[in-house]
Amino acid sequence: MARTPKILILNGPNLNLLGTRQPSVYGRETLGDVERACTKTAETLGLEVDFRQSNREGELVDWIQEARDSHAGIVINAGAYSHTSVAILDALLAVDLPVIEVHLSNLFKRETFRHHSYISQAAQGVICGLGAAGYLYALDALGRRLSAQGEA
Amino acid sequence: MARTPKILILNGPNLNLLGTRQPSVYGRETLGDVERACTKTAETLGLEVDFRQSNREGELVDWIQEARDSHAGIVINAGAYSHTSVAILDALLAVDLPVIEVHLSNLFKRETFRHHSYISQAAQGVICGLGAAGYLYALDALGRRLSAQGEA
Amino acid sequence: MARTPKILILNGPNLNLLGTRQPSVYGRETLGDVERACTKTAETLGLEVDFRQSNREGELVDWIQEARDSHAGIVINAGAYSHTSVAILDALLAVDLPVIEVHLSNLFKRETFRHHSYISQAAQGVICGLGAAGYLYALDALGRRLSAQGEA
Amino acid sequence: MARTPKILILNGPNLNLLGTRQPSVYGRETLGDVERACTKTAETLGLEVDFRQSNREGELVDWIQEARDSHAGIVINAGAYSHTSVAILDALLAVDLPVIEVHLSNLFKRETFRHHSYISQAAQGVICGLGAAGYLYALDALGRRLSAQGEA
Amino acid sequence: MARTPKILILNGPNLNLLGTRQPSVYGRETLGDVERACTKTAETLGLEVDFRQSNREGELVDWIQEARDSHAGIVINAGAYSHTSVAILDALLAVDLPVIEVHLSNLFKRETFRHHSYISQAAQGVICGLGAAGYLYALDALGRRLSAQGEA
Amino acid sequence: MARTPKILILNGPNLNLLGTRQPSVYGRETLGDVERACTKTAETLGLEVDFRQSNREGELVDWIQEARDSHAGIVINAGAYSHTSVAILDALLAVDLPVIEVHLSNLFKRETFRHHSYISQAAQGVICGLGAAGYLYALDALGRRLSAQGEA
Amino acid sequence: MARTPKILILNGPNLNLLGTRQPSVYGRETLGDVERACTKTAETLGLEVDFRQSNREGELVDWIQEARDSHAGIVINAGAYSHTSVAILDALLAVDLPVIEVHLSNLFKRETFRHHSYISQAAQGVICGLGAAGYLYALDALGRRLSAQGEA
Amino acid sequence: MARTPKILILNGPNLNLLGTRQPSVYGRETLGDVERACTKTAETLGLEVDFRQSNREGELVDWIQEARDSHAGIVINAGAYSHTSVAILDALLAVDLPVIEVHLSNLFKRETFRHHSYISQAAQGVICGLGAAGYLYALDALGRRLSAQGEA
Amino acid sequence: MARTPKILILNGPNLNLLGTRQPSVYGRETLGDVERACTKTAETLGLEVDFRQSNREGELVDWIQEARDSHAGIVINAGAYSHTSVAILDALLAVDLPVIEVHLSNLFKRETFRHHSYISQAAQGVICGLGAAGYLYALDALGRRLSAQGEA
Amino acid sequence: MARTPKILILNGPNLNLLGTRQPSVYGRETLGDVERACTKTAETLGLEVDFRQSNREGELVDWIQEARDSHAGIVINAGAYSHTSVAILDALLAVDLPVIEVHLSNLFKRETFRHHSYISQAAQGVICGLGAAGYLYALDALGRRLSAQGEA
Amino acid sequence: MARTPKILILNGPNLNLLGTRQPSVYGRETLGDVERACTKTAETLGLEVDFRQSNREGELVDWIQEARDSHAGIVINAGAYSHTSVAILDALLAVDLPVIEVHLSNLFKRETFRHHSYISQAAQGVICGLGAAGYLYALDALGRRLSAQGEA
Amino acid sequence: MARTPKILILNGPNLNLLGTRQPSVYGRETLGDVERACTKTAETLGLEVDFRQSNREGELVDWIQEARDSHAGIVINAGAYSHTSVAILDALLAVDLPVIEVHLSNLFKRETFRHHSYISQAAQGVICGLGAAGYLYALDALGRRLSAQGEA
Repeated sequence: MARTPKILILNGPNLNLLGTRQPSVYGRETLGDVERACTKTAETLGLEVDFRQSNREGELVDWIQEARDSHAGIVINAGAYSHTSVAILDALLAVDLPVIEVHLSNLFKRETFRHHSYISQAAQGVICGLGAAGYLYALDALGRRLSAQGEA
Repeated sequence: MARTPKILILNGPNLNLLGTRQPSVYGRETLGDVERACTKTAETLGLEVDFRQSNREGELVDWIQEARDSHAGIVINAGAYSHTSVAILDALLAVDLPVIEVHLSNLFKRETFRHHSYISQAAQGVICGLGAAGYLYALDALGRRLSAQGEA
Repeated sequence: MARTPKILILNGPNLNLLGTRQPSVYGRETLGDVERACTKTAETLGLEVDFRQSNREGELVDWIQEARDSHAGIVINAGAYSHTSVAILDALLAVDLPVIEVHLSNLFKRETFRHHSYISQAAQGVICGLGAAGYLYALDALGRRLSAQGEA
Repeated sequence: MARTPKILILNGPNLNLLGTRQPSVYGRETLGDVERACTKTAETLGLEVDFRQSNREGELVDWIQEARDSHAGIVINAGAYSHTSVAILDALLAVDLPVIEVHLSNLFKRETFRHHSYISQAAQGVICGLGAAGYLYALDALGRRLSAQGEA
Repeated sequence: MARTPKILILNGPNLNLLGTRQPSVYGRETLGDVERACTKTAETLGLEVDFRQSNREGELVDWIQEARDSHAGIVINAGAYSHTSVAILDALLAVDLPVIEVHLSNLFKRETFRHHSYISQAAQGVICGLGAAGYLYALDALGRRLSAQGEA
Repeated sequence: MARTPKILILNGPNLNLLGTRQPSVYGRETLGDVERACTKTAETLGLEVDFRQSNREGELVDWIQEARDSHAGIVINAGAYSHTSVAILDALLAVDLPVIEVHLSNLFKRETFRHHSYISQAAQGVICGLGAAGYLYALDALGRRLSAQGEA
Repeated sequence: MARTPKILILNGPNLNLLGTRQPSVYGRETLGDVERACTKTAETLGLEVDFRQSNREGELVDWIQEARDSHAGIVINAGAYSHTSVAILDALLAVDLPVIEVHLSNLFKRETFRHHSYISQAAQGVICGLGAAGYLYALDALGRRLSAQGEA
Repeated sequence: MARTPKILILNGPNLNLLGTRQPSVYGRETLGDVERACTKTAETLGLEVDFRQSNREGELVDWIQEARDSHAGIVINAGAYSHTSVAILDALLAVDLPVIEVHLSNLFKRETFRHHSYISQAAQGVICGLGAAGYLYALDALGRRLSAQGEA
Repeated sequence: MARTPKILILNGPNLNLLGTRQPSVYGRETLGDVERACTKTAETLGLEVDFRQSNREGELVDWIQEARDSHAGIVINAGAYSHTSVAILDALLAVDLPVIEVHLSNLFKRETFRHHSYISQAAQGVICGLGAAGYLYALDALGRRLSAQGEA
Repeated sequence: MARTPKILILNGPNLNLLGTRQPSVYGRETLGDVERACTKTAETLGLEVDFRQSNREGELVDWIQEARDSHAGIVINAGAYSHTSVAILDALLAVDLPVIEVHLSNLFKRETFRHHSYISQAAQGVICGLGAAGYLYALDALGRRLSAQGEA
Repeated sequence: MARTPKILILNGPNLNLLGTRQPSVYGRETLGDVERACTKTAETLGLEVDFRQSNREGELVDWIQEARDSHAGIVINAGAYSHTSVAILDALLAVDLPVIEVHLSNLFKRETFRHHSYISQAAQGVICGLGAAGYLYALDALGRRLSAQGEA
Repeated sequence: MARTPKILILNGPNLNLLGTRQPSVYGRETLGDVERACTKTAETLGLEVDFRQSNREGELVDWIQEARDSHAGIVINAGAYSHTSVAILDALLAVDLPVIEVHLSNLFKRETFRHHSYISQAAQGVICGLGAAGYLYALDALGRRLSAQGEA
């Protein structure tokens, strides 16, 4: 595969406030910091990243649908929509790309309604509680998977 | 009533992918195919169809509200929002038009969270599992109802 | 297939009272009216109907079993047994014919115990709340399916 | 009203064994004893009783339906079917006669699944735990109601 | 037994408003009417009645305790406390007298929280939905029981 | 006991289809095959078998009641009625004979509503998932029990 | 209406400790302070207040009953009894006066058992988390309602 | 603080239909009426109001985020999103402004799914069932709070 | 501390019947016996006991409130109110004294509704199933705590 | 297959006390008696038994793992671990041998927490309530299965 | 009884860390301190203690079984196994010795999964939240019971 | 910190079968392969790994306790014990080291009882569904944390 595989990294509602909102829960890195770290890691893995954020469920659905033909995988931190959006789940099931779900905080130590994620039904794997590094592990996991497919 | 009654046919998130997404669940007809079949059936029933799709909950709410004065009934396949949207339910309750709910697949054979639909609370009837033909039966049912009102 | 395919239309308990019982819920058509409408629609579809009613769960099970070799499909409005009969569900699973479930009223607007139907687990599709017309749509859906099989 | 009003007294499954089955729960009176006591009490109230027992849900449904035009009220001890039969509930709702529900034992001191009765949704009143005398009180209650209607 | 057996008839909170409060639910008889009917029926049964009402859970507990040595049985309509008072249940269990529970309305047709009664765990029988006549049947049932004991 | 003890072997709804229905779940033996194997095993155990099948709950109740004086034990595979019939449970409790419950498939690996059986409350033991051999073990268990009683 | 309308302001258990108990939850104002503020606000609204507190469920029931003929509305902070008292709910339903429910703290941020209030079923509106000002808003709301009735 | 503090008043889906939709539930005032009343009350309190409505969850999230630096408090009637939106809850938690939740109708007397609001977790107080006046009380409560802070 | 610390020992509903009521559950000691044993043990611990019983929830609330300034700790066996009284819980939380909860029987071997106690949320420790000795251990535990505080 | 197939018979915690512990529940046979009966039956079936007991979950896991290459099937009475051990379930799923689950008593007549067994998810069949004979039937069932495979 | 009765005091997982682990929850006394206090108290009561700790469920089961003939009672703090071990419950039921359950902290103020203990089903009494003194009260309770038996 | 920090990597029940057991769920790498990959990654991170597996809950508890003074962090894949072991949770809470929870498969796509893990309550982060790479990410995350602490 000559073209650099492109990974869609999706961030859900309120993640644009990262670094400024509830730092005891979410840490002090901004979403710009996370994007820069992802770009850097992606380069070492031979991947390109397409990093986006939206507060709108429907826009996230649109972006997932558009990724079907152009992207090789999805890293998604759907934020609050993880717990409420069947529409995003259905979009992920429909595009049939490898998906890794990421959360900055350990959801299982927070309110009960954050323990369930619809996204997990469509994801290959889930990483939570490891802060921004979770995104980098997700990229690495997608990179391994694409390599394995390339070799197969 | 001299004017041809207009029926709003609403399609929710991911239905734009119809025919390409999970064909074992949703079949091979595209949403364009469904629209053409609806238009043809509507003609035989003396109805006009206004066929739309959106991935956005709020846009679906807007469209339902706008139909209040201009349309004679609503056929709605709200897709994933059927299971999560009280806002669409409230819009349907507010406009007070006859509503028929349609689903392509038999929801009762799928995951438990798809067994409940908020839309059903506002619908006159529900059709599921009969594929695109469900839309045609819904149009027929609205046509019968409008005829009965016309005669009354 | 030279023989006219025969469709078993089954009606469960208390449907014999149709038209006289709780008209605000079930309408004013009698079961005889429904049978006549079904016969007429079946003719236009090239189908024959075998229309029955019983208040007895076991008799409904017997009739379903007997249909296995002689009938091409089943339309069933199991009435109250929809909510309580695993025996009817098992009979439908055993005969392995296409099944469409029909209810006259929209069950989802009534008592909670009417929201669940065992029958739905064995049905290709479900129609509810459209009155007697629901039977006709069910016949049409079976007709389409038989045609599609004939063509295949 | 010149004709003696007729009361249908229905007994569900296993009540034919009364007096011989689990006497510590159900006492030593037979169903024949209960019938004789009912007949005697009915006479003093100016009522006629039509006393029946069946182990079959469908037969109980039939009998309730048939009472619609010929009887003035129903006393029902549906036994085990109280807890499982929506069909009997629907028959009682359909015939629209005054209904009193009777149980020989106090169901609320027995297994949890005996605490809920579908019949209660269609009954004017419920009497349990008072043995055969419960039937007599039910007759008296129907008699009072018929008198009140006669006077009105 | 030469002395006339005394029956304690207890009425819980808000029953003092009977006849004036929500007549569609509770009817138009006042609590005084009920007491007079009870007194009259008791005479024919060779019983004496001690008829009381209180809005206070603790006072009802006191009265039940005091009945232990002086009374032969209890008829109790604990009203709202039926659904919430373990203290009254424990008092009834402690005094070990025959108890009949009465409710004027059919609780099973009202809000779900009225379907459960702690009192039923301590009662020989339960009568509901038969209005004031329920008290009379309860007296009759206690009378039968006392006679049976007298004969034994 | 000079007479050969007679064992009632009851089969519930849809078991008449055995061997032809869903063979991946229920195997290829017919109910006739099962009866022959039971008869043969019974002979070696000094027992006689009375083997019946019905799709009707009420008929099963009748047969259980009739066994009270003529039979020495019951083997019952109530099929779908296992999960829904309090009437059969009550009949078994009433006749007070030793009962062994048999199911051909392992219910605990199937749908959740098949995990609960009312019959188990009245059975000495339960065997499931061992196919037709389960009936033979049930006969053997009853034989052992009768021998033990004979010796005692 | 020449007479100044009288509003009953009821305070349930432990509210007499206000200002001294758990100030982080309930603030530092005493119940006397709340009464003075209510009296002052009532004057500007042309209302008279009758301000009471009791730790006894039955006494609160009594006071509500007595208000039926003498008062024009009720403001109630039933404290702990909000979550457990069907008796107070029934009293409020019986007297049929406009009722506003007030809580000092935001119950929905506290233990789960404080999220449900029986009182809400009988209240026109609910105010919580706004401290003593909630009482004043409740008075204002009753005042508006009385004015609207006066004008109607 | 020389500048007039600005309060964001947010209205969720379908509130634009106010006054025309289900007047028996929501009353006859339009949202324009509510805005005018708020503006007038705000003036007397020395506050400025920024009054908005949207049918889109994501737009409400955006507006809440934008208020962080420019506004002094939020009054929110999130309508149907109150019951389903974790995203709005998270936005409110993130901006860390005082929030008062308002509902026009008493949610606790409506369908069960309207009894729970995610918004309440982020609100200082909740007002429901008092119609448009609820908005005015919310403004007053924010005004008191800002005054208290100003004095401190 | 020169004054002997006073411990309030509270007994809830029906405990006045102790020794005479259900001795298989509660033993044969009377409440007077328990009081004497407490007094004797208290003396050896340098404590004074104030031993009371009431069948009234509100009176127990009053007594707890009054103990705030005069007593050094509370031993409470709230009987049936343990399972139903948020008012007593709130009183205990309000007075902020050390509390030990005692029950004579092992609640966890009795009906499910006795497994939960609101009191436990406000208690330092819980003792159940050890009969009257439980009171003495509770006194000893309070004594140890007071000594530790005295030393600190 | 020339070698005699070896069956692992596993007994979980407290089964070493068999015959001495709660004989009304578990009977009077010791585990040694059961082993002897199994050995004898196995001989007639051409099987060898490897009979073990452990109170340790981990040791049972070890033994199941070790059986993978050396044994032809497993009979397991996991006792209390049936209800709590996912580890034993996983070991059984991992070794992929035919498994029959046995319980001496009828679990469905005991405490609710004994109604669910994790083991059943990995078992071909389940036998309970037939005492030690259950082990023999399990051996027979494994023997039949091995014969069928030998013939196939 | 000439021999000093021996009491088995069992400590479950992680109690070996006592005094060093989470002192805010469990206090600062080590398990050695607790053992010394128990030994001292036992002497005054004429008892001998056999004090053990294990992190292994199976070892605790073994020790309980071994105590059957050699010990006169058991004090058990099963720690985390209290909430998950049916095996320990069954061992306690099997040995049929008096058992007192002890917990250092008040479990009812901690996570919900710590509110339920299987051990309580087999215990005479339960003490929690009183720290190490709980062990001493448990010894005292066993001593009283043994004395009472000795006297009887 | 001159010494190489040591990380305890714990593997729970049945993980010793890795690579041979259910490869469709767990993949084809053996636990030896995982250990080698961990050792290699650890070296690049300046960490030492102590890699262990046990089928015994108690042994895992022991190892966690022992790590308290000698190790700098824990990576734990507790396998089946994740879902059932409060003892392992308590050990992790007690030793107060950074913990990362790893699972090879995506638990959220498997049986419901695998969706809940007690371990998550004590973990900084959770990684599941990424196969053996999950261990490496966990090591990396601990390495980052130790570096951050070193720098702080």
